[in-house]
Amino acid sequence: MYKFTSQSPLALSSGKHLKTYEIAYETYGKLNADHSNAILICHALSGDAHASNPESETENPGWWQLMVGPEKPIDTNRFFVICTNVLGSCYGSTGPTSLDPDTHKQYQLSFPVITIEDMVNAQAALIDHLDIQTLFAVVGGSMGGMQTLQWSISHPNRLKKAIVIAAAAQLGPQSLAFNTIGREAIQATPETPNIGLAIARMIGHITYRSDESIGTKFGRKLQEADYGYGFSTEFEIESYLKYQGEKFINRFDATTYLYLSKAMSYFDLIKSYGSLESAFKNCTAQFLIMSISSDWLYPSEQSKEMAKTLIKLNKTVTYCEINSPHGHDSFLMESNDLSTMIRSFLDSTS
Amino acid sequence: MYKFTSQSPLALSSGKHLKTYEIAYETYGKLNADHSNAILICHALSGDAHASNPESETENPGWWQLMVGPEKPIDTNRFFVICTNVLGSCYGSTGPTSLDPDTHKQYQLSFPVITIEDMVNAQAALIDHLDIQTLFAVVGGSMGGMQTLQWSISHPNRLKKAIVIAAAAQLGPQSLAFNTIGREAIQATPETPNIGLAIARMIGHITYRSDESIGTKFGRKLQEADYGYGFSTEFEIESYLKYQGEKFINRFDATTYLYLSKAMSYFDLIKSYGSLESAFKNCTAQFLIMSISSDWLYPSEQSKEMAKTLIKLNKTVTYCEINSPHGHDSFLMESNDLSTMIRSFLDSTS
Repeated sequence: MYKFTSQSPLALSSGKHLKTYEIAYETYGKLNADHSNAILICHALSGDAHASNPESETENPGWWQLMVGPEKPIDTNRFFVICTNVLGSCYGSTGPTSLDPDTHKQYQLSFPVITIEDMVNAQAALIDHLDIQTLFAVVGGSMGGMQTLQWSISHPNRLKKAIVIAAAAQLGPQSLAFNTIGREAIQATPETPNIGLAIARMIGHITYRSDESIGTKFGRKLQEADYGYGFSTEFEIESYLKYQGEKFINRFDATTYLYLSKAMSYFDLIKSYGSLESAFKNCTAQFLIMSISSDWLYPSEQSKEMAKTLIKLNKTVTYCEINSPHGHDSFLMESNDLSTMIRSFLDSTS
Repeated sequence: MYKFTSQSPLALSSGKHLKTYEIAYETYGKLNADHSNAILICHALSGDAHASNPESETENPGWWQLMVGPEKPIDTNRFFVICTNVLGSCYGSTGPTSLDPDTHKQYQLSFPVITIEDMVNAQAALIDHLDIQTLFAVVGGSMGGMQTLQWSISHPNRLKKAIVIAAAAQLGPQSLAFNTIGREAIQATPETPNIGLAIARMIGHITYRSDESIGTKFGRKLQEADYGYGFSTEFEIESYLKYQGEKFINRFDATTYLYLSKAMSYFDLIKSYGSLESAFKNCTAQFLIMSISSDWLYPSEQSKEMAKTLIKLNKTVTYCEINSPHGHDSFLMESNDLSTMIRSFLDSTS
């Protein structure tokens, strides 16, 4: 993992600014002579810069090991792949758990509220630093897809291709509602924020899966042969969710979750630009927009709406609904369709 | 409100028993000479015995004021309507907040875990006490629908008609998962269970509505003109959910929520009887099964499955999907279709 330290302050959407900030990142493959083969990968809410581990498929694999590596759809023999930890996160980039240079204490809630646009502008400073004028592609799913959309709008001439997976121009009503409850759970337990963080993660896990996939994996299966007529953990889905909650509090920070969740709630291209058409009107990237058939957190309808708007504006866009029963998180799972679409979109020379 | 005090102990599904118990109930209309016009109404998780207020449509209205009263679909000029507070609840019937006769302290978590079947058996004791051999109908939505199903199975000769609305033979995988998180939120904050109760209620509220209805009512509307770039309540849906959470903790008990939620999680006709066919095989009631088109907590598919099984068994069943955008809670809202179906089903003499 590398660290980039900014040379100039970052002006934030809120009107505040960060005097200085660091961005943690990893790279895979080699930058070519004319610096034209760089792909930026943007991670989702709980992700980090460790997208891949080209040295080992099994030991400490990256979160997108399936997609990024030699001969993989995002082929590191061909591309110079960069994955940053987003601004505001707790995996090496500046965020609420970083030391405030003025007080030498953790920022925590004194950290300024940041937006997807702020994350993207911090990434752009890193891309400058790497002496890359134009990215071959920006790619991301979920919150990473939001960043990809923002890249295509904020820096239209700095990317050739944009791959947006399981994302939307704004969280839909139900998804926004679940988002606010996650934060509420953390804020309601200020003395023990990890209790709220675990609850937020459990809610998240249900929304990242489909009813069908929870049914197939867990259904109503019990851990014991029969009901215990008490209040200990009994259903396998209950045990799984608790395990996910406990695992998460050991690797994530509750305050950071508030910030990243808020950035997702705030992301709204329609509000920011007046309409989807206005948002996309200066885009020059070729788009690959993909949704997941069983994703109810970011329903296909929202992705189609973006694709239709881009077509209306005479932009180059490919839309594909990936048929998968596994819900939102399908973009992190093995999928021939997803792999094939990404590989051929990166290969295309239109 | 009346109170019925049991004359004999209640054997529970868990193998334990309650030495004595009370059931709070209200009645509307008059029992006829041959005691053949009684309808039992079963409430949902957070309901009580106050289904209607025939004296006033506006002052302290009942939770099913729209459906129960003079000239209403469940017409109290014609029927003697009984609504009980379920065993285990906190609105007058014996439950975790009642005094344990042995210790003279609130039962709280020493209250035995109860099931939908236990609730129904306690209701049956009250129906005995009221000297009613056969109910004209049992009616309920959501957890009330589960009780209605259980009535038709446990006491097949004691009801002529069963109206089951927005219910299922078992909670589906996703609904079970949300159910367990509600309990987890309460159990994770044992010193301050109301914090968890509020979170559970907020989660519940999202699941009781559809994405469309949340969108129509709240969408992404803000309370202020623009983002505040802080962590106070900003979105209207956020404010609404917090309000619902706060309102709920002032009227409900966290331990009681655990018990009723668990009763719903445990309800599983397939597990209890081996199959839906075995569960329904001795039923004699005529069934009206209704689902709500936008209900994703109790999807129509599950109601259809019950109806198909009853048809296969040559039982009399009417199935109807109510077309409504409002989600699960539609059964509590104004609906011509729902009213018409209930009225005509109660009128039918087949």
